Amino acid sequence: MIVVMRRDAKEQDIEHMVRQVESLGLKPTVLRGTERTVIAAIGDERAAAAIGVLESGAGVDEVLPVLAPYKLASLETKAEPTVVRAGSLTVGGGHLGVIAGPCSVESEEQIIATARAVKAAGATALRGGAYKPRTSPYSFQGLKEKGLQFLALARAETGLAVVTEVVAAEDIEIVAMYADVLQIGARNMQNYRLLEAVGRSHLPTLLKRGPSATIDELLLAAEYILDAGNQQVMLCERGIRTYEAHTRFTLPLATVPYLHLKTHLPVVVDPSHGTGHSPLVPAMARAAVAAGADGLIIEVHPNPEKALSDGYQSLTPEQFADTMAGCRKVADAMGIKM
Amino acid sequence: MIVVMRRDAKEQDIEHMVRQVESLGLKPTVLRGTERTVIAAIGDERAAAAIGVLESGAGVDEVLPVLAPYKLASLETKAEPTVVRAGSLTVGGGHLGVIAGPCSVESEEQIIATARAVKAAGATALRGGAYKPRTSPYSFQGLKEKGLQFLALARAETGLAVVTEVVAAEDIEIVAMYADVLQIGARNMQNYRLLEAVGRSHLPTLLKRGPSATIDELLLAAEYILDAGNQQVMLCERGIRTYEAHTRFTLPLATVPYLHLKTHLPVVVDPSHGTGHSPLVPAMARAAVAAGADGLIIEVHPNPEKALSDGYQSLTPEQFADTMAGCRKVADAMGIKM
Amino acid sequence: MIVVMRRDAKEQDIEHMVRQVESLGLKPTVLRGTERTVIAAIGDERAAAAIGVLESGAGVDEVLPVLAPYKLASLETKAEPTVVRAGSLTVGGGHLGVIAGPCSVESEEQIIATARAVKAAGATALRGGAYKPRTSPYSFQGLKEKGLQFLALARAETGLAVVTEVVAAEDIEIVAMYADVLQIGARNMQNYRLLEAVGRSHLPTLLKRGPSATIDELLLAAEYILDAGNQQVMLCERGIRTYEAHTRFTLPLATVPYLHLKTHLPVVVDPSHGTGHSPLVPAMARAAVAAGADGLIIEVHPNPEKALSDGYQSLTPEQFADTMAGCRKVADAMGIKM
Amino acid sequence: MIVVMRRDAKEQDIEHMVRQVESLGLKPTVLRGTERTVIAAIGDERAAAAIGVLESGAGVDEVLPVLAPYKLASLETKAEPTVVRAGSLTVGGGHLGVIAGPCSVESEEQIIATARAVKAAGATALRGGAYKPRTSPYSFQGLKEKGLQFLALARAETGLAVVTEVVAAEDIEIVAMYADVLQIGARNMQNYRLLEAVGRSHLPTLLKRGPSATIDELLLAAEYILDAGNQQVMLCERGIRTYEAHTRFTLPLATVPYLHLKTHLPVVVDPSHGTGHSPLVPAMARAAVAAGADGLIIEVHPNPEKALSDGYQSLTPEQFADTMAGCRKVADAMGIKM
Repeated sequence: MIVVMRRDAKEQDIEHMVRQVESLGLKPTVLRGTERTVIAAIGDERAAAAIGVLESGAGVDEVLPVLAPYKLASLETKAEPTVVRAGSLTVGGGHLGVIAGPCSVESEEQIIATARAVKAAGATALRGGAYKPRTSPYSFQGLKEKGLQFLALARAETGLAVVTEVVAAEDIEIVAMYADVLQIGARNMQNYRLLEAVGRSHLPTLLKRGPSATIDELLLAAEYILDAGNQQVMLCERGIRTYEAHTRFTLPLATVPYLHLKTHLPVVVDPSHGTGHSPLVPAMARAAVAAGADGLIIEVHPNPEKALSDGYQSLTPEQFADTMAGCRKVADAMGIKM
Repeated sequence: MIVVMRRDAKEQDIEHMVRQVESLGLKPTVLRGTERTVIAAIGDERAAAAIGVLESGAGVDEVLPVLAPYKLASLETKAEPTVVRAGSLTVGGGHLGVIAGPCSVESEEQIIATARAVKAAGATALRGGAYKPRTSPYSFQGLKEKGLQFLALARAETGLAVVTEVVAAEDIEIVAMYADVLQIGARNMQNYRLLEAVGRSHLPTLLKRGPSATIDELLLAAEYILDAGNQQVMLCERGIRTYEAHTRFTLPLATVPYLHLKTHLPVVVDPSHGTGHSPLVPAMARAAVAAGADGLIIEVHPNPEKALSDGYQSLTPEQFADTMAGCRKVADAMGIKM
Repeated sequence: MIVVMRRDAKEQDIEHMVRQVESLGLKPTVLRGTERTVIAAIGDERAAAAIGVLESGAGVDEVLPVLAPYKLASLETKAEPTVVRAGSLTVGGGHLGVIAGPCSVESEEQIIATARAVKAAGATALRGGAYKPRTSPYSFQGLKEKGLQFLALARAETGLAVVTEVVAAEDIEIVAMYADVLQIGARNMQNYRLLEAVGRSHLPTLLKRGPSATIDELLLAAEYILDAGNQQVMLCERGIRTYEAHTRFTLPLATVPYLHLKTHLPVVVDPSHGTGHSPLVPAMARAAVAAGADGLIIEVHPNPEKALSDGYQSLTPEQFADTMAGCRKVADAMGIKM
Repeated sequence: MIVVMRRDAKEQDIEHMVRQVESLGLKPTVLRGTERTVIAAIGDERAAAAIGVLESGAGVDEVLPVLAPYKLASLETKAEPTVVRAGSLTVGGGHLGVIAGPCSVESEEQIIATARAVKAAGATALRGGAYKPRTSPYSFQGLKEKGLQFLALARAETGLAVVTEVVAAEDIEIVAMYADVLQIGARNMQNYRLLEAVGRSHLPTLLKRGPSATIDELLLAAEYILDAGNQQVMLCERGIRTYEAHTRFTLPLATVPYLHLKTHLPVVVDPSHGTGHSPLVPAMARAAVAAGADGLIIEVHPNPEKALSDGYQSLTPEQFADTMAGCRKVADAMGIKM
């Protein structure tokens, strides 16, 4: 860490901060500049709330971290890319996984019809929510275990791996009975009790970025899962909240190459939530592939006008087939298996 | 709701949308303009995913909601302000409640010393975290039940009501054994399983706004608690995530008068998280009072340089006493009891 | 427009608003719902500050616009895509234009070397700033007319069209003597005096989106140019300001398909400013092509370490050649001419 | 500056960066940590595009600036607060200046009536736009010189200093003939040609923060004016663009105490643009005073429903008088002259 002293810092402030740095187990070096003094604190700064401790010192202007706060997720810790495999789904290592299906499981017919359609178009896993976190208590909250059973039937029919959301630690056991991949939704990215429990489960996990999470926060959320012993983690960019109102969220695809420079974990993109409008999904799915995404997760509904949730961002099976065709051309051009 | 059709919508699209509106139990009125046709859908539009259903119709450009999505929290449902009372703490109805204390409970000595100091300066409740949601798995995670016991000792010593965070539904029982007010942290504002459980608990609750939550989302989160039967809800503005980097979060005080126009629930402001830097806290605490806040929640630590979390935004007891003096002048000028 | 009345609006408020709507030349229709009354105001609502006038009426809750505020830029006004041509550069209509070059023109040698290198790699126009708007008064401010002369020499050498920024109306005459395309920078997107002057110039224009501009604001800025008689306008997405700090700006590529649904003007993407870090540029350039962009503008410098501005986001000629190779594969796969 | 090397940086990369630091006239110190090496570069880092030059070096992870980029605006350069005086208006040094009036000058009657009303309620200067930068080319663009003449008449009638916007360098001469204070609008905060010209004018200037400007960018914009020799600069916080949609902008009042820690220039708050809704203005005006603002600028219109611009955020004269009464109570409690 670098402790930047204020211009009017007294000599005793500097001496005090040197001792503070030492008391954290770090090695201080005092650098006196023309206008200010800075103290470099060398060592593993991640331990403890070191920044906070130093920032509240007298005469301190600011404290600049030098090391990334995450370790296990870092490319510096593990250089080869992690490949996540769950039944029919492979994500990473040159394979583009495609997870498709409705926002919510609504009925046996709906999920089986969707599973067949998305498989025919090239999807390699089926998504569908049984436990739904909904902004309003008056919205449809999901079919719960019944929904999980329908997902398992769809897997039996099509062979597609099942990806479904888990919203609380106490539900993991039942969800794990039916699902191949646990999804942690954006609202729960910092639900640490849930992250720890998913970590202990050792099930392949899709971790969605919270709509106001920084990349460091996303990687630290992954770190909770990795630290509990589960290495099968996919990160998912699904859009962030910005001032833009013509899309539901703003989808920052630079997340994909940036994460590939920082972490070995594979990166999945969700153009459905990332835009919130089905006419924008095909272009953003193609763009995600071109940006180097390791996977896509796309909402598809046999009849979006009748969907109990998120109809406006769901593709019809026909639109999804067209989207896949566009993505495949880009993937082929780039030498990605799809 | 207002369904705005595209300029190139066909007559059959309009007829289809009229039937869709009717199928939702709403009454359609077709208005043909010079450039476009709009269909007004009159009735209680909150039920079901009505907007989504209509937005995915052929020929539809956009759907504009007319009614606020929340009911029980609305000033239109209950016109008189809700006053939340928990032991020594009264929030709302012309009373300014002041909740102060450390980010984390660290020891018996620390919490008792802080409780005495903040009471002497005018605080009416004690805050302190025993279960801490932390961004990094390597940070201090709280003393858990031991911390709750220390809080109860501090209450026995000072008479101050205890406000502490609950991070999972399964912890409510134990936290409720020691605390007077349950706090739902910003990261958990949309943890619906937790909201429902807190709602069933009937304990006074401080609900913090998520850093990227809209006001409607905050009120819908409160609606989960209200809908489960718990009317003792305080809303807390603690800053939102914006592009500003000189403060930890951006504290939008217009939330206070805006909420007072929309809801009967009292509004508490957190200038500590809202700025993230202790030198900015006193001015923002005064500003919150001047904006009409019903309460303040402020981090105070006997020795911020030794704090295990959030030291850089904690006031010393002396700084807190000065802050209270400043707030009291403003409160007195405005006729608010403090 | 739709005027939504408050639940407690009085009958006289409603009658007053009906007259207000009429006084704006719009046709009112009163719709009485179960909870609220709304007044639909049919007609061309763009004239005057109609929303503001209605919003301040007694008993009014909010006013929802129905028509887009721009006309000439709208796809509803002109259905066929606009193609912008300037010498060697063609943007739109299935042609991907590639504008490349340094942030600033620094010397004759630098700009000619860059022009040759980018042409060899496939660029169809040369960029380079002679008049530089710089955040700090202490930064390099550009070579001014000397820089324009160097750009003209580079065009003579390579045949590449010249794209360069104009920062004030009084500079248009001199810039137009040397440049093929006028660039309006992000900071000047709402410099209306400049927009009007550029509109009167009838020169092909590249209009960059301001970092906090909405799409409607961008299209209204274009509307100033179109309204002054200049139809040769390219829109440029160059990233918006969000809470993300790992990139200089957040590049929202959904702008590309969204604009294609709303306007006939071609869309250029700037992955250099949009990310601010050269290692992210190649992936985002490919993604922009896959999203359907009509053009790219990319910073290239023969020696980024010696650049007087923006070196950290400039590609070397070799990196640019690799980037072009990647983009060409995607463009070929999608049937776009490049 | 601190140059943070990547973990895999080679020894020759480090040696190269040491020479780069020296070539910038800075003194390098190499600090070898357990995981990474950092190079401290001591000296005046503001000159040239030093960060960019260093960031593009091989093996460099990031470059952290240590010094603030502005000098003349810094409290470290001038410790005593700047007081701006223009006729009846005093801003800073314990005086709260109040600038009030309509968004646009619409007629002689309108501006004189408003001037009388705001003076009676306690305003110390009159605002009113004659040259209006408007988002849409179809909106009212201002009365131009005729508007300036009406403002001068209102000053003759009431003695109030006149504050009005200037949108282009070529208008300064004519605006200066009538106005006491030049206002630079938010859209022009980075119109450097205008800033330089206003700097040379030596007229008291109100510089509004751009809606996506950082505080450093605001202070650097002020630096352009100060550097041109004009010391009479007021900074104005008028709200920033965030994801919040219930207010027109988000008004971050922490700007006030933060700027007071960084600069000697006085700080004015605009609660009208900062909220965009007149019912929220009184509370935010009081809050600004409590936060320590040196001035307020508030929109007042004799008949907001008939305003040609911004009616929805304008107070009536009666509402303004009430607002002033509330602000005066807070100012009195805090010992501020108003």
